[in-house]
Amino acid sequence: MTEIGVGIVGMGTVGEGACGILTRNVESIARQAGCQVRLACVADLRRDELRSRVPAEVRFVEDAAELIRSPDVQIVCELIGGTRAAGEVVRQAMAAGKHVVTANKELLAKHGPELLSLADQQGVDFYFEASVGGGIPIISPLRIGLAGNRIQKIVGIVNGTTNYILTQMAAEGGDLADVLKEAQQLGYAEADPTNDVEGYDARYKLTILATLGFHACVDVDDIYCEGIMKLQSRDVDYARELGYEVKLLAIAKRVDGGLEARVHPALVPFSHPLAAVAGVNNAIFVTGDAVGDVMFYGPGAGSLAAGSAVVGDVIEIARNIRCGATGRLKPIEFRDLDLVSTGESVARYYVRMLVKDASGVLAAIATEFGLHNVSIASLVQKDASEGVAEIIFLTHEVKERGMRAALECIEGLSVVEQVCSMIRVEE
Amino acid sequence: MTEIGVGIVGMGTVGEGACGILTRNVESIARQAGCQVRLACVADLRRDELRSRVPAEVRFVEDAAELIRSPDVQIVCELIGGTRAAGEVVRQAMAAGKHVVTANKELLAKHGPELLSLADQQGVDFYFEASVGGGIPIISPLRIGLAGNRIQKIVGIVNGTTNYILTQMAAEGGDLADVLKEAQQLGYAEADPTNDVEGYDARYKLTILATLGFHACVDVDDIYCEGIMKLQSRDVDYARELGYEVKLLAIAKRVDGGLEARVHPALVPFSHPLAAVAGVNNAIFVTGDAVGDVMFYGPGAGSLAAGSAVVGDVIEIARNIRCGATGRLKPIEFRDLDLVSTGESVARYYVRMLVKDASGVLAAIATEFGLHNVSIASLVQKDASEGVAEIIFLTHEVKERGMRAALECIEGLSVVEQVCSMIRVEE
Repeated sequence: MTEIGVGIVGMGTVGEGACGILTRNVESIARQAGCQVRLACVADLRRDELRSRVPAEVRFVEDAAELIRSPDVQIVCELIGGTRAAGEVVRQAMAAGKHVVTANKELLAKHGPELLSLADQQGVDFYFEASVGGGIPIISPLRIGLAGNRIQKIVGIVNGTTNYILTQMAAEGGDLADVLKEAQQLGYAEADPTNDVEGYDARYKLTILATLGFHACVDVDDIYCEGIMKLQSRDVDYARELGYEVKLLAIAKRVDGGLEARVHPALVPFSHPLAAVAGVNNAIFVTGDAVGDVMFYGPGAGSLAAGSAVVGDVIEIARNIRCGATGRLKPIEFRDLDLVSTGESVARYYVRMLVKDASGVLAAIATEFGLHNVSIASLVQKDASEGVAEIIFLTHEVKERGMRAALECIEGLSVVEQVCSMIRVEE
Repeated sequence: MTEIGVGIVGMGTVGEGACGILTRNVESIARQAGCQVRLACVADLRRDELRSRVPAEVRFVEDAAELIRSPDVQIVCELIGGTRAAGEVVRQAMAAGKHVVTANKELLAKHGPELLSLADQQGVDFYFEASVGGGIPIISPLRIGLAGNRIQKIVGIVNGTTNYILTQMAAEGGDLADVLKEAQQLGYAEADPTNDVEGYDARYKLTILATLGFHACVDVDDIYCEGIMKLQSRDVDYARELGYEVKLLAIAKRVDGGLEARVHPALVPFSHPLAAVAGVNNAIFVTGDAVGDVMFYGPGAGSLAAGSAVVGDVIEIARNIRCGATGRLKPIEFRDLDLVSTGESVARYYVRMLVKDASGVLAAIATEFGLHNVSIASLVQKDASEGVAEIIFLTHEVKERGMRAALECIEGLSVVEQVCSMIRVEE
């Protein structure tokens, strides 16, 4: 029976998970792959510290280049993270004719098209299931099970940290800052949470999903990105009173004139399957022209979950090697599909404002909305105190540009104290 | 560019969907497959009636054997349904060296191992994504994305008709018979609904899932199967008061001594993702030793949804043909994994009974439960009238055998009028 050798570069969370699965499930993996799959080598600069975590029969080197050169390594798993060293490892491995698996969303979001093209030139496979949604199969379903579809829309909860924070705010109340601190103590948020709470992590993942779903070559920096830091707990509470959960969504959809892609908090109705996605879980909702709506749900992070996705990729590549069919998945042919400016994007909105508690105020606001073609679906006035009333509007669909212009004028009205929140509503 | 020819046998709901997708999405399918995929031929005995539904450039024959013989057909899609004619088509196609795609759950449940083995002998691919969960990718994730896992448990809502009925009962009340009649009028249930409401359809699908998830060669008739016909609307209502939805579940899980597989109605807590699966949708919840819990959700039936799964399979096979890699997915090596008798299965239970409204009744019942090691987690007494009280028990985990023995004794108590319902609780 053929034996295929695997190398893991980077023994962090994901590396350790993949190492554990490859060594523990040897038999079932061989059955699935149709050949022996052996973890031959691990590379990490912290060899002395980590040696004991890797079985003794697996070679452990410090230098990734040494691993890449090893003739018994045919598949290199880049599990370092970041873009510099990781990018070098991926390029060197491909240049050496090795197949590559990565979990690296940032690398893919920033250099995906270049690396896909390099893999094609070198005739090697390049798989990255773990880069989005942790252990949830989402990349392969987009390339395989749903391949007959023209994808129309992808909406994902793809960041576990922010989803944990929002779930806690909804369940127990509390300000974002407090919940974030708690999440950090529990290990659900990093010491520097910027990447998660500002939506950058979700944006990396959305870039990958847009690439696969729409064959669009999207520049990550062009994607509109709004994090959760401005969310107030009262908005989460009011949203729930109105029948919505607040979720950080990553959205890509085909629209007239191109592709819309954006990351931002949004109200999701209780009846939508994404509303029930709680805690650190992720879910990706995909609409295809044939299949309709499907959703993929599961743990968006974690050592073994992400490791599961890495090993799934390793098995697929092993099958290809066994059959002499590497390059079986054709590289993505990118299409001319421009990102539509966010101003043109159409959505419903939740708006909360503080106004003077006086007659004629509503009429003044409604007039401004009307002038900008913003149609009000409903409004709720919360209790007024000290002459100030809090009003929540839900609008019908409107272009973002019109919405922003309306709110700018409304904020200028003397009867309006403050426009506190403007959050999109996704049905 | 290579061109690969596809034949569709059976122009029913799924056939028409697959035909539509193959002809409409020609370009995107070619991009995904890396070669042209052309619908070359369709076979159906009702040719005269159906000719207009198939593009004129596609050959339309009456005789499936003629389609199978056609040199320009490399992939045969068996979309007839049933087992006799369908089985013949699949066997003949394989014998002729053609790759086969099927949506036929009954055929797979009854003859899966034989057909998988035949495909292997003939060196052809045999794919069946559409057989479970309609358009939801579930077969390929089990074979690809989750291939690194040892699967521990699969719990599915895999029958849209019964899920529609249960959703309606929960939302609007009403007896099962009435809701079923309404579902038939809306086309969500067939004129003869036996296959759905008795759980047979779910059992076929569970057989396939168990085969793939556990590599177990399960005889469909050995799987415990309980339909929804005995469900009463008050049980659905009471379950909801207690925080549960009632769902028809198909469950396969690894247990000491083998595999447990059963189809029956169950209480699912609101917090579980399966509880939110409404209407004709399906969802399959999979637990793997590495990934943890993942769920696949979407439309369980429908022409284009099932067609999407068929076309996904066609594209995968086309890739294999293009690369000379057919047989890339190794046939399943079946393991010795016996079905554990249902009596040994452990679950929590919901039990509703009518008892005399007198003192000492509860003590008598509790004593019987205790004698059979059934531990009561909670009980709710509903209003009593005319000397009869309705009591609902939720038990802790107990073997089914013990539960049934306890209820038999309890039913024999003079103070007990009737044990009305016994429904498993899945957490």
